[in-house]
Amino acid sequence: MTVLILTCEEDVTADMVVVHLNGSGVPVVRLDPADLTDGVSLSGEFVHGCFRGHLSAGGRLVSVNGLRSVWVRRPGTPAGRAARPSAWLTEESSQALYGMLRGCDARWMNHPDAARQARHKPWQLRLAQRCGLPVPATVITTFPRAAREFAERFPDLVVKPVSGAHPQDPPRAVPTSRVAPDADFSAVAFGPTLLQRRIAKRADIRLTVVGERLLAARKMAAPDADPQEVDVRFAAPGAPWEPVEVPPRTADAVRTYMRRAELAYGAFDFAEDADGTWWFLECNQSGQFGFVEVETGQPIARTIAEWLARPVPAATPEVSGASSTPR
Amino acid sequence: MTVLILTCEEDVTADMVVVHLNGSGVPVVRLDPADLTDGVSLSGEFVHGCFRGHLSAGGRLVSVNGLRSVWVRRPGTPAGRAARPSAWLTEESSQALYGMLRGCDARWMNHPDAARQARHKPWQLRLAQRCGLPVPATVITTFPRAAREFAERFPDLVVKPVSGAHPQDPPRAVPTSRVAPDADFSAVAFGPTLLQRRIAKRADIRLTVVGERLLAARKMAAPDADPQEVDVRFAAPGAPWEPVEVPPRTADAVRTYMRRAELAYGAFDFAEDADGTWWFLECNQSGQFGFVEVETGQPIARTIAEWLARPVPAATPEVSGASSTPR
Repeated sequence: MTVLILTCEEDVTADMVVVHLNGSGVPVVRLDPADLTDGVSLSGEFVHGCFRGHLSAGGRLVSVNGLRSVWVRRPGTPAGRAARPSAWLTEESSQALYGMLRGCDARWMNHPDAARQARHKPWQLRLAQRCGLPVPATVITTFPRAAREFAERFPDLVVKPVSGAHPQDPPRAVPTSRVAPDADFSAVAFGPTLLQRRIAKRADIRLTVVGERLLAARKMAAPDADPQEVDVRFAAPGAPWEPVEVPPRTADAVRTYMRRAELAYGAFDFAEDADGTWWFLECNQSGQFGFVEVETGQPIARTIAEWLARPVPAATPEVSGASSTPR
Repeated sequence: MTVLILTCEEDVTADMVVVHLNGSGVPVVRLDPADLTDGVSLSGEFVHGCFRGHLSAGGRLVSVNGLRSVWVRRPGTPAGRAARPSAWLTEESSQALYGMLRGCDARWMNHPDAARQARHKPWQLRLAQRCGLPVPATVITTFPRAAREFAERFPDLVVKPVSGAHPQDPPRAVPTSRVAPDADFSAVAFGPTLLQRRIAKRADIRLTVVGERLLAARKMAAPDADPQEVDVRFAAPGAPWEPVEVPPRTADAVRTYMRRAELAYGAFDFAEDADGTWWFLECNQSGQFGFVEVETGQPIARTIAEWLARPVPAATPEVSGASSTPR
């Protein structure tokens, strides 16, 4: 049984996981859907009530029914590097590849539908609330008046994008920034705006979840930090990331979140306040983990490899025998 | 409790359903996400462990928590008609709108994730096989040799797209066509190709499923039909669509399909052969139904309206009380 990794060639984080899989002797096929149909080939047959599918990449042939897990890391656009790329070829290739993989019994990290759902920030906030995680007061609105009223109630505010990175080429991360409560909110009418009560944080928390395993790291805020620097990704380098215990209640809530979101991997960001409370900021279902592993020595790549290497679950029982259907 | 319909203005099929909802006094809000943020506004607040959301369209304000169902018919691209449209504004608007709706307790016809999954033809074929529906022998391949071998085994063939309509503007349906078994299959290497054993059909079957209700119609093939015309959408007009009973075994299999696909609405296409067997061709989760209703008099629009009007299910229980979380 093979592990299939869908990612681009330059993904060095995937390399870290492949090393562990190779070390334990688990067969791995790594391919980039962008290389369809030049370098990557596929074939699937639906005959006599059965399905037989194959993928070929780098001269290796793998059976779709023989996959134990699929790791969707950073795959390129299907057929994006074809000799004559087109929207039509991308659509056909995407449907063919993912349509076949969706029908197999392999375990997913993460399933494409769970991944898509998990990217929605408003959905994340609601799920976190329901799982009992503390969520800073937030508004997402196109009503300037709603923004103004929110700023009156919560004058210490940050603004951040509703979605993730800006879709320019290459994509650009939009930093979280502070907003003055007397700001002019009239432009809110032109696009949804996310305002959130700023958490006065003493540390950033990155909690990486792999299956049932929780690996948390803390980065203390510098005592003399610029109060305008609220986004750890853009702040001046300060204290290192260090391993930290997860409070039991947070651990329970996070596991509930992962289960309801049907995610096998998630990177949670929390802000730790002066009382030690971890405030939920977001869960990135494809968050990077290399920088945490390097600084903390936490075995994230190995844990992912172990999850991917687990045996495949028993196949879904057929409703009626294939042999009883007409040919 | 309100029914929310997401569709474009020119969708006359939705009008047929709205008439029934209006007739039964159920509140309806219809909006096109393309009209964000000019005509459609939204606002959602996540405060004190609770969520309060609102949508505004055509001067009407509706509570997101007060939605009983969401009908995703033919919605436009979010913010597609904004004064200054952009990929960034579309992404922000999409995440804000669907992110809020995904967090509510309304019933979906169909949920966006189920809809996306259900569009994958290879996944459809596999699920149909597993549910016990007869599926014509099919291959989807980029290997010319696999195509050639398939054509030797099944010389009476059709070719059709793996995905749906061609993404030109306006989108164009690609007809299913017959292929000679001695065709040159070398171009298969440049894009996934779907070949399928042709069913010698005496009738086309359209089976519309709304919740648990099955409404089937049959259109007999003309005895003098051009054997090259295999796609009913492009064939010369012949016999009318007429209501037909669903064979009990097919009904069971179709209900299983709908349940596993988590669909509330689906339009199945079958080819009926000389033995009366219904061969599964596809299930379109957003298939049109107006033409069937007009020709057969089957109450599809009313059945959809009744499904949408059903009371909302009980809310998901909270894992821990909102009052026990920090503010």
